[in-house]
Amino acid sequence: MSTSQVRPHPLSVTTPSDREVRTERVFNAPRERVWQAMTDPKLVAQWWGRGNRLVIERLEVERGGHWRFVEHTPDGVHGFEGRFREVSPPERLVQTFEWDGMPGYVVIETMTLEDLGDGRTRLVTTSLFHTTEERDGMLSSGMTTGLEESYRALDALLASGA
Amino acid sequence: MSTSQVRPHPLSVTTPSDREVRTERVFNAPRERVWQAMTDPKLVAQWWGRGNRLVIERLEVERGGHWRFVEHTPDGVHGFEGRFREVSPPERLVQTFEWDGMPGYVVIETMTLEDLGDGRTRLVTTSLFHTTEERDGMLSSGMTTGLEESYRALDALLASGA
Repeated sequence: MSTSQVRPHPLSVTTPSDREVRTERVFNAPRERVWQAMTDPKLVAQWWGRGNRLVIERLEVERGGHWRFVEHTPDGVHGFEGRFREVSPPERLVQTFEWDGMPGYVVIETMTLEDLGDGRTRLVTTSLFHTTEERDGMLSSGMTTGLEESYRALDALLASGA
Repeated sequence: MSTSQVRPHPLSVTTPSDREVRTERVFNAPRERVWQAMTDPKLVAQWWGRGNRLVIERLEVERGGHWRFVEHTPDGVHGFEGRFREVSPPERLVQTFEWDGMPGYVVIETMTLEDLGDGRTRLVTTSLFHTTEERDGMLSSGMTTGLEESYRALDALLASGA
């Protein structure tokens, strides 16, 4: 078992402006592998759903491409979808994010992968909301806990050498 | 020929905040007929494209439903799409709007139809952008001219008694 599974890297969550949330997290894997885990449907299905069954209905990783994931949780079925604004492997991904439960509330997510030069990678995400209320709603909905669970599942996937 | 086709009602365009555009336009038709023209695919195809061929690929007028139109202009093919956030016939429609040429740049459009009580209807739209730059880009791209053309085509459709 790798160290990362026992004591995960901390998740940093800040609010750089009144419509943004920024997160930072380090992973014990080279940038190319983290990029692959974020863009290959077979790999995404293994961590994004935090242990829940995840059906990848669409994942067209190119500018203008769409994505749609359906997560099967004990409490019900949750759909998520969006579209890619920018795809620059293995460094930067900009996409929209929308949950079926609040259709038409669209978040712009910018993800950058920084090569730390020692076999580790820092993932920085910035989420831009249309309003402060939407941002605060997302923060109070358990976004941070969900992200921590997803990232621990990603740690496990990366440690498995998949 | 109706008066509305000879001298159309003016289109009012204002910027109530640094991320919004608001428009106002009166139509010589009862609210229910304007609502129908905005939500029935057969009718939308007759005015939204301003005389260009418009293919309505999706128009699911319900909360969470998607829409996608493809306009065939002399200069090329342009896709537009979005999702319905709120559908309250015959008064209020909130949807997202995205042009294929700038994927992932999402505008929130709120449309309200006001019954003027004399057989006419006022359509008010508010477009909320993620940034001021996106709003100004839309304004300088000929949004106003395009909207005037669409609304004149809608005048003609409403006058035809369709």
